[in-house]
Amino acid sequence: MSGNVLGERELIRRISEILGGVENDDCAVIDAGERYLVATTDMLHRKTDFPDIMNPWQMGWMAVAVNLSDIAAMGAEPAGVLIAAGLPPEADLYFIDELFSGFGDCAAYYGTRIIGGDTDAHQELTITGTALGFVEKDLVLRRRGARAGDLLCTTGALGGAGGGLWAWQNEVESEFITRLLEPEPRLKEGQALAKSRAVTAMMDNSDGLALSLFDLAEVSRVGFVVREEALPVADCLAKMVGQEKALEMAMSAGGDFELVFTVRPGELEAARRACRLTVIGEVVEEGIWMERGGERRRVEAKGYEHRIGGVD
Amino acid sequence: MSGNVLGERELIRRISEILGGVENDDCAVIDAGERYLVATTDMLHRKTDFPDIMNPWQMGWMAVAVNLSDIAAMGAEPAGVLIAAGLPPEADLYFIDELFSGFGDCAAYYGTRIIGGDTDAHQELTITGTALGFVEKDLVLRRRGARAGDLLCTTGALGGAGGGLWAWQNEVESEFITRLLEPEPRLKEGQALAKSRAVTAMMDNSDGLALSLFDLAEVSRVGFVVREEALPVADCLAKMVGQEKALEMAMSAGGDFELVFTVRPGELEAARRACRLTVIGEVVEEGIWMERGGERRRVEAKGYEHRIGGVD
Repeated sequence: MSGNVLGERELIRRISEILGGVENDDCAVIDAGERYLVATTDMLHRKTDFPDIMNPWQMGWMAVAVNLSDIAAMGAEPAGVLIAAGLPPEADLYFIDELFSGFGDCAAYYGTRIIGGDTDAHQELTITGTALGFVEKDLVLRRRGARAGDLLCTTGALGGAGGGLWAWQNEVESEFITRLLEPEPRLKEGQALAKSRAVTAMMDNSDGLALSLFDLAEVSRVGFVVREEALPVADCLAKMVGQEKALEMAMSAGGDFELVFTVRPGELEAARRACRLTVIGEVVEEGIWMERGGERRRVEAKGYEHRIGGVD
Repeated sequence: MSGNVLGERELIRRISEILGGVENDDCAVIDAGERYLVATTDMLHRKTDFPDIMNPWQMGWMAVAVNLSDIAAMGAEPAGVLIAAGLPPEADLYFIDELFSGFGDCAAYYGTRIIGGDTDAHQELTITGTALGFVEKDLVLRRRGARAGDLLCTTGALGGAGGGLWAWQNEVESEFITRLLEPEPRLKEGQALAKSRAVTAMMDNSDGLALSLFDLAEVSRVGFVVREEALPVADCLAKMVGQEKALEMAMSAGGDFELVFTVRPGELEAARRACRLTVIGEVVEEGIWMERGGERRRVEAKGYEHRIGGVD
């Protein structure tokens, strides 16, 4: 097997076996008495996660935002964020001040704060954020729970962050770049959807809609049909990259941090009262399908996935 | 100021200002209804934190143990551990299996488990553990609370991990090496001491006793006298490194993960019923002092501190 590498999802399966089962959700869920405590952690580092154009404030914002998005996906209210920061030798005081202001500003924007952390010297800038939240026990939303016949929905628009990456790589000026660098997780929407009691399963689409659908499908043991014409492709994205590329970005590009969720068919109005959403398809028995002009084709898992570890 | 670097404690003060105050405790404390939730995070990486002789199982054990020690220091019961692991290209399946077994075994040894995490590809092995715990609100122990006249105490023996580092560096075979590589945080002792209600302030001594005393002194606005002859220097350490060096290790070497705490003078018996402890001195109005043969001399802050960030 020399030269092989493990994909992130395969690695997670292996680790889950070693550790005796880790729930496949955006957050871990712990009994905290009256409510559930939800907790999530995410390691970001310079080379893989921070594009060159990102300023240190944005790096700080991003490190907190990606974790809060996982709190949002559980329908939880954030209760605090911990930050472990490995700072490289070239990090000067300006960099440090901006980075930590980014942490604090993102937390404050979502009504929470940085409650603790750890600093360390590191060769490469490495930031691990951990977000904590609480949710009423009967409101918590998980990846499992979707049932055939449920409606498939998303918050916001899709493909904007992908457009930002494209614009940056092609040296085009575009507002999408800000969307890529300063994501806005859907905390309010997540909580409101949980309270609506109309949602059967939820996760965020941080690795792209397609991968999220594969994850939801696996855990809920269902499939999905996505109606292409229903996808809320980000405004003006098609103008910049063309119609086909825009659709591909809406389907597969990571970084949007929207919520993908399923709604009981009779309760769509309750979900709509909770937040702005778009119905993009429905839950079926098996497979991930894209429907265009009445025709269905299978969707391959496509999206952002780190490759990890050499296999000897 | 070119060429200067910030010490970890100075950096933490600066960050605390930016973030509007972060409590100086082993864990962050969050209201979770009937109890407090305590949470801590620690980033470890190959070069700084994992000696060459460490095997991957020990790296995993260590990453969990350092965090559980912070839970112990609050008098809390662990409720779960999150692990973010940045794995280098040379990490093969054996390495990954052993590393994650180390995480899981340490958590299980202390009656908790790995509840979630994140994996990432990284140039240098980097592990951020986050430990969560719960504690009754009226039992939580903090760094502040020590008052002049209280007795200064420690669990276990001191200097063993320092002896392990010395033995490794000097290529001497010694059981101290295991103590360095497989630390055993004092979870039971921490909880029992909290329940005894005899303790006024507590923290772990992960960076060495001297640095812990400086931290406790700053937060509690007190001083300490340590009676040198009372220090529970690890058995046989003096035989290996000599009497003076052994005392220095007991006072300043990091890695022991014992609990340092202060006890109301009338309640020493209650504390003794909670766990084995040694009274090593007492709380005074100001200064950190070492007493030998009736004479007192001031102790300088000496211990393990990462240097972080260039200042331009």
